[in-house]
Amino acid sequence: MKENRYDDQTFFDKYSQMARSQKGLAGAGEWPELEKLLPDFSGKRVLDLGCGYGWHCRYALDHGAAYVLGTDLSQRMLEQARARHGGPGIEYRQAAMEDLQFPEGSFDAVISSLAFHYVRDFQPLAERIGRWLVPGGSFVFSVEHPVFTACGSQDWYYDENGNILHFPVDNYYLEGRRDAVFLGERVVKYHRTLTSYLDTLLQSGFTLRRLVEPKPPEELMDLPGMRDELRRPMMLLIAAEKR
Amino acid sequence: MKENRYDDQTFFDKYSQMARSQKGLAGAGEWPELEKLLPDFSGKRVLDLGCGYGWHCRYALDHGAAYVLGTDLSQRMLEQARARHGGPGIEYRQAAMEDLQFPEGSFDAVISSLAFHYVRDFQPLAERIGRWLVPGGSFVFSVEHPVFTACGSQDWYYDENGNILHFPVDNYYLEGRRDAVFLGERVVKYHRTLTSYLDTLLQSGFTLRRLVEPKPPEELMDLPGMRDELRRPMMLLIAAEKR
Repeated sequence: MKENRYDDQTFFDKYSQMARSQKGLAGAGEWPELEKLLPDFSGKRVLDLGCGYGWHCRYALDHGAAYVLGTDLSQRMLEQARARHGGPGIEYRQAAMEDLQFPEGSFDAVISSLAFHYVRDFQPLAERIGRWLVPGGSFVFSVEHPVFTACGSQDWYYDENGNILHFPVDNYYLEGRRDAVFLGERVVKYHRTLTSYLDTLLQSGFTLRRLVEPKPPEELMDLPGMRDELRRPMMLLIAAEKR
Repeated sequence: MKENRYDDQTFFDKYSQMARSQKGLAGAGEWPELEKLLPDFSGKRVLDLGCGYGWHCRYALDHGAAYVLGTDLSQRMLEQARARHGGPGIEYRQAAMEDLQFPEGSFDAVISSLAFHYVRDFQPLAERIGRWLVPGGSFVFSVEHPVFTACGSQDWYYDENGNILHFPVDNYYLEGRRDAVFLGERVVKYHRTLTSYLDTLLQSGFTLRRLVEPKPPEELMDLPGMRDELRRPMMLLIAAEKR
């Protein structure tokens, strides 16, 4: 990627209004499922790729991590992270994750929330993450689901009265750039197949521990539009382990 | 399932005209990818669930298997299998795979081609397969992709001129029965999510080795409709290993 929409004032202002920005983990529908996949952080060195406001960094530290490094491309995000979730044991660094370099075995856990679909090439990144991790180290991440990213529009298909008909899938095997709309703004994302996420991990020295497509929790089902989220998968949560 | 469309004369006649029935493995577009996932069969005891004409059973035997058992619900299929691919070392048995019973560790490899989407409950089956396998045993199978089974119609969405617009996904998280149309005939299939295939395996004592969504090979791309198969995933190939 290296496109950095989050430092665009309009985009950032909209992002900062989202439930996940204001309420943090509790405002992210997938969090209860993601939390179950996270490793025991006690005494661990943790890297968070695309850390945003730093909610996950703080969570890791609060759950015993010895050291947490959050990286993000966006300076605005990191300002928020430092202000809200700074302190001893947490470091924030501005960097494109494609450019990061660490010595082998620098981390016991690597986490990433909804950031890899901004990255053009997953395989080299997965291989580098594999080297940064100690053997047995955890790699847990969420991404937008390939079903959600395939078409590009990331919108439902509607009838002439504006009712949802279904969710469209197209160009599934044509991986690469998609001009998506997020928060009413144009955002470049990268679509890849499930094979490209999972088989790449399996062939890059990772063992898969869990795979979950989170669905809206029952207690949120009455929120507007939430029941429609049973009609399409929007996210993919993956827990892997470095062999 | 236990619905057995393959013993319906009309359906069976149509099925017998398909390339995969007439040409066998060479007529199945996904075969080159599936073959790569298969284990070394030398000296192995192999179970093929939903064996159809017995092409995969014969392949296993030709590649050194000590014993191959093919099971299928359809008597007509098994007649074809016995006639085409019978002989010493191969046994065919009529049974719904949900009803099969074997002692623990009876097989070194279990394979299944495009049959599990006829089965209502995957988890109990996966657990039983896990018990039938020796530790380290292989479990390799293909199924229709959850994207392909979600909506039910298994058909593209067209514009008013009959041109393909996209492939529709709907009711993704609502697992269960779908009334699909296959070869112009109504067929009951069962949709389940990717989570239900993969996470079930991971939580039932299997290690995932490979996951591949096969796409049409380049050399077939000029066949009618083949290029459209780059627009949606139709199948999922999974190779797992009993821990």
